[in-house]
Amino acid sequence: MSHIVITGASGFVGRALVRRLRADPQHQLTLIDQAFDAATDGPNTRQLLGSFGDPAVLDQALRTPADIVFHLASVPGSLAERQHALGYQVNLQATLTLAHRLAAQGEQQGHVARLVFASSIAVYGPLGTLPVREGQPAQPAISYGAHKLMAEIELADLSRRGAVDAVSLRLPGIVARPATETGHGSAFMSLIMHRLAAGQPYVCPVSSGATAWWMSLPCCVDNLLHAAAISTADAPPSRCWQLPVLHLSMHQILAALEQRYGAQCGQLLSHQVDPQIEALFGRFPALHTPAALAAGFRHDGDADALIRHAMAPAQ
Amino acid sequence: MSHIVITGASGFVGRALVRRLRADPQHQLTLIDQAFDAATDGPNTRQLLGSFGDPAVLDQALRTPADIVFHLASVPGSLAERQHALGYQVNLQATLTLAHRLAAQGEQQGHVARLVFASSIAVYGPLGTLPVREGQPAQPAISYGAHKLMAEIELADLSRRGAVDAVSLRLPGIVARPATETGHGSAFMSLIMHRLAAGQPYVCPVSSGATAWWMSLPCCVDNLLHAAAISTADAPPSRCWQLPVLHLSMHQILAALEQRYGAQCGQLLSHQVDPQIEALFGRFPALHTPAALAAGFRHDGDADALIRHAMAPAQ
Repeated sequence: MSHIVITGASGFVGRALVRRLRADPQHQLTLIDQAFDAATDGPNTRQLLGSFGDPAVLDQALRTPADIVFHLASVPGSLAERQHALGYQVNLQATLTLAHRLAAQGEQQGHVARLVFASSIAVYGPLGTLPVREGQPAQPAISYGAHKLMAEIELADLSRRGAVDAVSLRLPGIVARPATETGHGSAFMSLIMHRLAAGQPYVCPVSSGATAWWMSLPCCVDNLLHAAAISTADAPPSRCWQLPVLHLSMHQILAALEQRYGAQCGQLLSHQVDPQIEALFGRFPALHTPAALAAGFRHDGDADALIRHAMAPAQ
Repeated sequence: MSHIVITGASGFVGRALVRRLRADPQHQLTLIDQAFDAATDGPNTRQLLGSFGDPAVLDQALRTPADIVFHLASVPGSLAERQHALGYQVNLQATLTLAHRLAAQGEQQGHVARLVFASSIAVYGPLGTLPVREGQPAQPAISYGAHKLMAEIELADLSRRGAVDAVSLRLPGIVARPATETGHGSAFMSLIMHRLAAGQPYVCPVSSGATAWWMSLPCCVDNLLHAAAISTADAPPSRCWQLPVLHLSMHQILAALEQRYGAQCGQLLSHQVDPQIEALFGRFPALHTPAALAAGFRHDGDADALIRHAMAPAQ
């Protein structure tokens, strides 16, 4: 029986992770989020309402020491830019509180938790046209990325001291988010799939040649579960892995959607380029991650598999 | 009249900076530290006793908005390794509190302060044998370095938002610290100068061929004052400068000491290598800082000038 704590358990990734973990009755799940519904409820499951950075919530969550913590909760990048104080409080300070509460469990109770941290490719800041490698310098251009990077550094230091056993994963945008979710600049990556699959027209805010880094939700969950299970004996001191991704143009995505949903997809799609969105989310260069692949992390395989995984009904 | 705030004003660097700033009667100085003596007292000077991360102390310090803040205070690296909670509180959390209090001054009062942050070469972690350049990746191996790096990232982000106007300087060990100061692993860099200059024998814990990065106290103060004065219009987004240093072996330091204090220095010096100190502080590779030099930052010039500056009586 292992005790698994999940922050942001009601979120897009959190729900899918809970569904997968529930398949194993040996897991005792403690879920933390600001709201819950029945979808994440079930046997061996506690739902704790509140902030993962609230010491009282953490005390309740860790009354039984945690074996594994998936830290998924965060204020999204564009919201954190509009509400700096909120982003600082949640993405940095609450994460530090959680990390140090787990470090105390490790140091005082000798129960060192595996902490899987959902970091982000936002740590890099602007990328050029040259292929990105795993040693790519991080120069975040938004507060969200800065705070994810600072959290990575603290988790690496706490891991060096043996107080926690962290694995930070730099996640790309995950598809296909519910069409109702707004506020993400990269929403087009999910909307193009939902709209064309449903036979609806879609005006895409990036060009046909725009390139992005793609990963489906099931593939993301696979990688999170793998991060919880790997040995960290040979992990880099940063405790950080850039997940492998598919580097695909919108044109390649369209071709895969046509393959699956029919040739009418091409007629449904038009482009009206928003230069800011194109610059921020449509100019990703190639990405090489031999170390992450060697450690067993995976991308979806190809564009067809990406669409199949991304559009699969919730298991 | 400009209002200048200095944290760690009673420290080794702080005292020297206060002496230099006092030469200009147009400066109003607010000094913050845990203890004071008469040396840092004087006209147009307020001494605030307490922590720079204490909101009450900061409110008092910033009743008149600050034009320039020199943030020098920190828990040294080896002490922070022994007392993790203290290092985390001071080097990270108190620094974040100070930075956000200054950001509030910038955002609410429209008075954006220049913040000169004494960061450290400890951000890099282990360096190889190849020359280090300004883009050297930072992979801190001690909490002190991790927290300095995290503070740099937050200051860069607050500067991007226009809330503060930060300049982070990565300082090497500064010489010659008072012989009474202990607890620094790099104490040998100062002790060799004090002992040989005084005609006393010295057993050096690193080899004759050990190489380190050197900067004198007056040179350090020059660079801090320069950092307060430069334009940041073309500063890198990191707001971070690796200061130029002299890359010298203990043998070259001995030669300069002999030059200044006489040939007997060679007889007074012996070596008893501590492998840990040699590994941590005696294996620094060459360092190239063309961007910092172009921005007007300086090292001491040569080994003779280093000794002359380092051993100059307090002005």
